[in-house]
Amino acid sequence: MPASCEMTQIVMPQHTNGAAGVLFGGVVMQWIDVCAGVAAMRHAAGAVLTASIDRLDFLSPIHLGDVVVLKAQVNFTARTSMEVGCRVETEDPRTGERRYTTKAYLTFVAVDENGRPRPIAPFSPETDEEKQRWSDANERRKQRLSVRPATRK
Amino acid sequence: MPASCEMTQIVMPQHTNGAAGVLFGGVVMQWIDVCAGVAAMRHAAGAVLTASIDRLDFLSPIHLGDVVVLKAQVNFTARTSMEVGCRVETEDPRTGERRYTTKAYLTFVAVDENGRPRPIAPFSPETDEEKQRWSDANERRKQRLSVRPATRK
Amino acid sequence: MPASCEMTQIVMPQHTNGAAGVLFGGVVMQWIDVCAGVAAMRHAAGAVLTASIDRLDFLSPIHLGDVVVLKAQVNFTARTSMEVGCRVETEDPRTGERRYTTKAYLTFVAVDENGRPRPIAPFSPETDEEKQRWSDANERRKQRLSVRPATRK
Amino acid sequence: MPASCEMTQIVMPQHTNGAAGVLFGGVVMQWIDVCAGVAAMRHAAGAVLTASIDRLDFLSPIHLGDVVVLKAQVNFTARTSMEVGCRVETEDPRTGERRYTTKAYLTFVAVDENGRPRPIAPFSPETDEEKQRWSDANERRKQRLSVRPATRK
Amino acid sequence: MPASCEMTQIVMPQHTNGAAGVLFGGVVMQWIDVCAGVAAMRHAAGAVLTASIDRLDFLSPIHLGDVVVLKAQVNFTARTSMEVGCRVETEDPRTGERRYTTKAYLTFVAVDENGRPRPIAPFSPETDEEKQRWSDANERRKQRLSVRPATRK
Amino acid sequence: MPASCEMTQIVMPQHTNGAAGVLFGGVVMQWIDVCAGVAAMRHAAGAVLTASIDRLDFLSPIHLGDVVVLKAQVNFTARTSMEVGCRVETEDPRTGERRYTTKAYLTFVAVDENGRPRPIAPFSPETDEEKQRWSDANERRKQRLSVRPATRK
Repeated sequence: MPASCEMTQIVMPQHTNGAAGVLFGGVVMQWIDVCAGVAAMRHAAGAVLTASIDRLDFLSPIHLGDVVVLKAQVNFTARTSMEVGCRVETEDPRTGERRYTTKAYLTFVAVDENGRPRPIAPFSPETDEEKQRWSDANERRKQRLSVRPATRK
Repeated sequence: MPASCEMTQIVMPQHTNGAAGVLFGGVVMQWIDVCAGVAAMRHAAGAVLTASIDRLDFLSPIHLGDVVVLKAQVNFTARTSMEVGCRVETEDPRTGERRYTTKAYLTFVAVDENGRPRPIAPFSPETDEEKQRWSDANERRKQRLSVRPATRK
Repeated sequence: MPASCEMTQIVMPQHTNGAAGVLFGGVVMQWIDVCAGVAAMRHAAGAVLTASIDRLDFLSPIHLGDVVVLKAQVNFTARTSMEVGCRVETEDPRTGERRYTTKAYLTFVAVDENGRPRPIAPFSPETDEEKQRWSDANERRKQRLSVRPATRK
Repeated sequence: MPASCEMTQIVMPQHTNGAAGVLFGGVVMQWIDVCAGVAAMRHAAGAVLTASIDRLDFLSPIHLGDVVVLKAQVNFTARTSMEVGCRVETEDPRTGERRYTTKAYLTFVAVDENGRPRPIAPFSPETDEEKQRWSDANERRKQRLSVRPATRK
Repeated sequence: MPASCEMTQIVMPQHTNGAAGVLFGGVVMQWIDVCAGVAAMRHAAGAVLTASIDRLDFLSPIHLGDVVVLKAQVNFTARTSMEVGCRVETEDPRTGERRYTTKAYLTFVAVDENGRPRPIAPFSPETDEEKQRWSDANERRKQRLSVRPATRK
Repeated sequence: MPASCEMTQIVMPQHTNGAAGVLFGGVVMQWIDVCAGVAAMRHAAGAVLTASIDRLDFLSPIHLGDVVVLKAQVNFTARTSMEVGCRVETEDPRTGERRYTTKAYLTFVAVDENGRPRPIAPFSPETDEEKQRWSDANERRKQRLSVRPATRK
């Protein structure tokens, strides 16, 4: 089974923009980074750094008092990095209704105590779903490498 | 199945006492209250207030960088209140080793929009474990009621 | 005089559950842990860890804008640990009315730089009230030791 | 007796600049504003706004793990405003040594529900110390009014 | 000139993972969301919601004590939504050296008091740079619309 | 050009007193300390400590959802210390209207790794405005030195 993480958050006043009581998009991003990061740390058996996060859509606003449930799992491993997928659902605790909110693909690099990349154990997908995720992640990885800018200033 | 909640936290600098990098006991209590509160909100289908928390032991210190995993489930329901149990484990992400940290029993009261107690659906334990939990919770409830002070000043 | 601590907090939006403006029980627990911890540090002349907190009742909700006043003092000392009592009152600043909110008994262990228990100076109760507190704390301690589970899983 | 407030804080990692473990000056200012604000709310029996704070000197750095003790009391009242003094001491919990850190004089305006100034009860100094504080505060008030810029852009 | 925002942050302990003193990726994302959101609010003259954020790369770790400078500006407007670009640089205050850290493209939707999309004023690019940004943003928009999933579950 | 810093903040629920949605004065002070501190760090090429802040007036309340813009620049340098001015404006994002809120003059001391004062490069004012600021700051410095209490208890 791939390393994974489940996290639950209640939307409190400090997570919202106040007047309208709508959750800031950036707060969801921070929760995604932590949830996916724990899955990555578990696979890497140590510290990791966020290397990238793929495009995120926020389909509907999340409100004060909603419960947000995040589930992350390792999809793919390279020599020192891995892709982690994270699915976010929002639940209205009065009705129990859950709705899909967003999903994210993040890449993490395992690092040693000096912050240098270090090798990780490979993840071997076993079930059909795991194999499909590995394959999809490999496709996304190729696309990421193809568009990575050669130089920056 | 009883209403439940799973929550994961990474111990960050602001959760610790700084120099020694040890998690404050009060931070664990706050996480327990939120995790158990989500389980209670899910059962009560709405807002709840923490009414009490039973004695908590902290068996070993939790350190900066540890992952803390909390699992809560509803054990028992009365007319407007319920008992929720919460088990806390601490994980060293470098080794994956998990150790039992503490457990807590909290009672919550379901409240309406004016903050007044409101009836909740009863929980019907089905498995042997659920029945055992209900029975244990009922014992704790009797003990709580017996020691509740009649007057306060 | 026993080591003590007085702490005052205003209930701000981030301490509440938002919609209803009611303070989270877990936030009170965190304040209790800090206030009692300062009293314990003062007695121990150095770092302490929270070892346990006895049962807490929350008698009435605390609201946004209320002032919360916490007072803690050392009740009892053993070789490396001590019991601290903490009384919490809530004040409505518009009327000045104060009401009893909860009280808590916490045990702290004094630790050295390696996190190992270290001896502390004994506290000698002098007034009748201090002697009564010592005696009550000693009773609670016996009860705690009697119910401490022998093994955990 | 004048309305007052006592507040205790432990310097935690998030209050410091990290590397050197020194408390940010701005964090002390925020604590002073809250402590003095509670004293003002108690006198005004309701909401207040900070109108000004006099010059603050920080005489020596405050470090991670120090205990900071703030004491505020109302010195002087005008029709809708009042001056509150706040004294800050820092305590090393290992030695119990306390040192004077800074003091501040703040003015607050009592406001009604629409944020408009509202009259407050006058404070009548009784002891010699209270009369001296009233007199000193009155001097500071005259100086403040004399230097308040006539127009702003 | 397009609506814009400049924001400066110091990396404090609570923004980092503690031991290694490296900034969490999710914290940068939250800062980006706020900085870009202010630019969007300024253009929209009112409330906005984050609708999406394009892929983000984190090229090098950001450390405790670093200064992070964010600059955002509106690139493109549609009827009720707009694209905002945000560039992030990291500065070592000891040397003054700045390095490119990441950039982000976010889309925001202007909303009325009921959270429904509302029309915004069009942005008219004038300089060559503004026209280039508009054109690039339009390309990104077409790509976003082409890959937006038709249904979700 | 003098070292400077520009900072933007949105007023969120946790920055306000809740009910009335008015920003705490102490939060503005904290933002001023950080913004001015970054300007000082940039001039000093390293760590600085806040030594003092001159009198602050808050001319009008700042509300939930307002955008606060802070601009700081070094006005004057002595051997190991410097004065930094910080101007605060508040913007209503619905109308774009900006109003002057307060200004502050802070002194910072550059410190080495042991927290001891260390010399900084002198700032040479060039424009007429910079020369005026230097001259005004020098006046304020003389006044500060004249009223600094000789002893404290």
